Amino acid sequence: MDEADFPEEEFATRTEKAQRAMAAAGMDALFFTTEPEVRYFTGFRTLFWQSPTRPWFLVVPASGKPVAVIPQIGARLMASTWIDDIRTFSAPHPVDDGIGLLAEVLAPYSAIGVPMGRESALRMPLKDFQSLRDRLSGAEFLDASSLVQGLRMVKSENEIAQLREICRIGSAGFTRAPALFRAGQPLKEVFRAFRIELLTQGADDVPYLVGGAGRDGYGDVISPATDQTLQPGDVLMLDTGATRNGYFCDFDRNYAIGTASEPVKRGHATLVDAVSAAAAIARPGRTCADLYRAMAAGIGQAEGDVGRLGHGLGMQLTEAPSLTGFDETVLKEGMVLTLEPSLTLGPGKMMVHEENIVVRDGEPEFLTSRAGPDIPVIPA
Amino acid sequence: MDEADFPEEEFATRTEKAQRAMAAAGMDALFFTTEPEVRYFTGFRTLFWQSPTRPWFLVVPASGKPVAVIPQIGARLMASTWIDDIRTFSAPHPVDDGIGLLAEVLAPYSAIGVPMGRESALRMPLKDFQSLRDRLSGAEFLDASSLVQGLRMVKSENEIAQLREICRIGSAGFTRAPALFRAGQPLKEVFRAFRIELLTQGADDVPYLVGGAGRDGYGDVISPATDQTLQPGDVLMLDTGATRNGYFCDFDRNYAIGTASEPVKRGHATLVDAVSAAAAIARPGRTCADLYRAMAAGIGQAEGDVGRLGHGLGMQLTEAPSLTGFDETVLKEGMVLTLEPSLTLGPGKMMVHEENIVVRDGEPEFLTSRAGPDIPVIPA
Repeated sequence: MDEADFPEEEFATRTEKAQRAMAAAGMDALFFTTEPEVRYFTGFRTLFWQSPTRPWFLVVPASGKPVAVIPQIGARLMASTWIDDIRTFSAPHPVDDGIGLLAEVLAPYSAIGVPMGRESALRMPLKDFQSLRDRLSGAEFLDASSLVQGLRMVKSENEIAQLREICRIGSAGFTRAPALFRAGQPLKEVFRAFRIELLTQGADDVPYLVGGAGRDGYGDVISPATDQTLQPGDVLMLDTGATRNGYFCDFDRNYAIGTASEPVKRGHATLVDAVSAAAAIARPGRTCADLYRAMAAGIGQAEGDVGRLGHGLGMQLTEAPSLTGFDETVLKEGMVLTLEPSLTLGPGKMMVHEENIVVRDGEPEFLTSRAGPDIPVIPA
Repeated sequence: MDEADFPEEEFATRTEKAQRAMAAAGMDALFFTTEPEVRYFTGFRTLFWQSPTRPWFLVVPASGKPVAVIPQIGARLMASTWIDDIRTFSAPHPVDDGIGLLAEVLAPYSAIGVPMGRESALRMPLKDFQSLRDRLSGAEFLDASSLVQGLRMVKSENEIAQLREICRIGSAGFTRAPALFRAGQPLKEVFRAFRIELLTQGADDVPYLVGGAGRDGYGDVISPATDQTLQPGDVLMLDTGATRNGYFCDFDRNYAIGTASEPVKRGHATLVDAVSAAAAIARPGRTCADLYRAMAAGIGQAEGDVGRLGHGLGMQLTEAPSLTGFDETVLKEGMVLTLEPSLTLGPGKMMVHEENIVVRDGEPEFLTSRAGPDIPVIPA
């Protein structure tokens, strides 16, 4: 970057850790096509990934700095990172969007790690990937998902500082709720007002903002805003993934409009208690499944529709690990997690609550300003 | 959606057109994993795609409505669309993130179209895709990229209405530039003020905002905001992809801070003239290469670093086709394009200008309020 998000040592350390893990896994190169992985090893940050036209490639060799194989349009920005070896191709290209160049860079390697497992995607045309494999017929392609997730899920203090700041901004935004939200307001205006508030407080962007409202709960947790108007007696939930310097917060808050019904009051307190139960045992050595079970016991139900009760957080809104009954990932200091218990209050009526923590050697650090057990009431 | 973006006929028409193209291409099903394609055929719109955890699948059969194979968390929202056949799986799942279910749905088909070409990605784990292919060993997987791009690049009047509205909002935002931008302002604040303005004017979101500033041009067109402050004599460029109801604008504006140098004045007028030259020939029957050559002649240079001088626009910031010398796509009424000529004024000094048009039976319709040849000057 013209102004790098982190000092060069951050990227050097990440690369060295990856190279140790590669040696242990018998891989002599890693190959990436996706934004978070390219950014993780280079610091290359741009919204230009919104354009699907051009592929971007990164190779992490067994030793030395990563090698970028990218469209010419990104050369200047990549040159401002710690990366030295930048190979560029003209894109879009009539016949070869970088595959020939990429095959040259990967030619020396025989065991190439590529993320192929849970949560991964391939951000290049399948035909081009097949062509690459054909050109590298002597090389084996191995699944590098757990290797990369294992690195990324433990955050450095540099990363935690970024996450702390965006969570502070999100928390500050929510404190303005009584001034922003009111009965009679369409949800589209609720969302718009909150986005503007987050930007005003210092967020760079608000790539994720979902929510819902209804009496005794809302229908789901993934819907965009509609023209539905807030009614007295509704419970309103907003769940935000705002970013600063490319790092996300991901948490929500619930508000009662005018009055809170007894089920909503009890539900809110139960969800906050469930977060406390998970935080009470969130220590290095415990597992994601332990946290899941602590929350599931508190809310008195099994996994339900949401499928998990929290997840990793960082350069993406959701990252590994998952707080599910089957994720036996052992917690380590520096992991940043969301604790996200949910409740069903009736058919089509749910409530969800979410906080963001850092696993520490002792009590976890809350990055979010915790919600209390009493649901806040916004005068109608 | 609780409030659908379009009437059901929009999706029925898209599906029928796809099915005619499938018959012509010898495909008996289409298979999709990516947001724009799932939304194109269903209307399913959510920011939840920000989370990489869960895959989402859609199958378009040779006849009848598409079939959604999706995580349980999306069932309620998908049920609010025109889709009837919704198969859900629990995700994340310890061993099967929907592949068993998906293989059942695809089992009847023998020639399955999947986007595998230019601009495509596979938004599911490669290991799962391989497992799917193994289970469907009797089926052939064919590249459906050009089929789907051919459909999507011609917009319906419903889509054009959405694009017209977000381009109107973007244009309205830019008219406020003199009140928003000033010498001494850090670029981060320039970007923040403009994002807030776009939201205030009615944008739902601003997923893309890039820009730059400098004397006699800026360094590139993909960088995020920095703490660099606007100086008298700078030319400032902001390029925005704002959205409303899931459709993008994509255009930029240039401003001189205080005074404009002669090269900047000439550059701006040349770029606006290049847009006029392309618009003058943008008619059904002409090609993308024709538009490219009209602009390239005007700016007196070849493709350069940017690699193309415009592209399709719709549910994504950039879509097929590409305005390059090698894209022989024939223009059709209803195509929405960006015209995006650029100039190099010196080493590390460029200027770019962009407008959005609809190809019509006659003169194109400008969706953006066109910039005039004189670069606007913001008093320093």
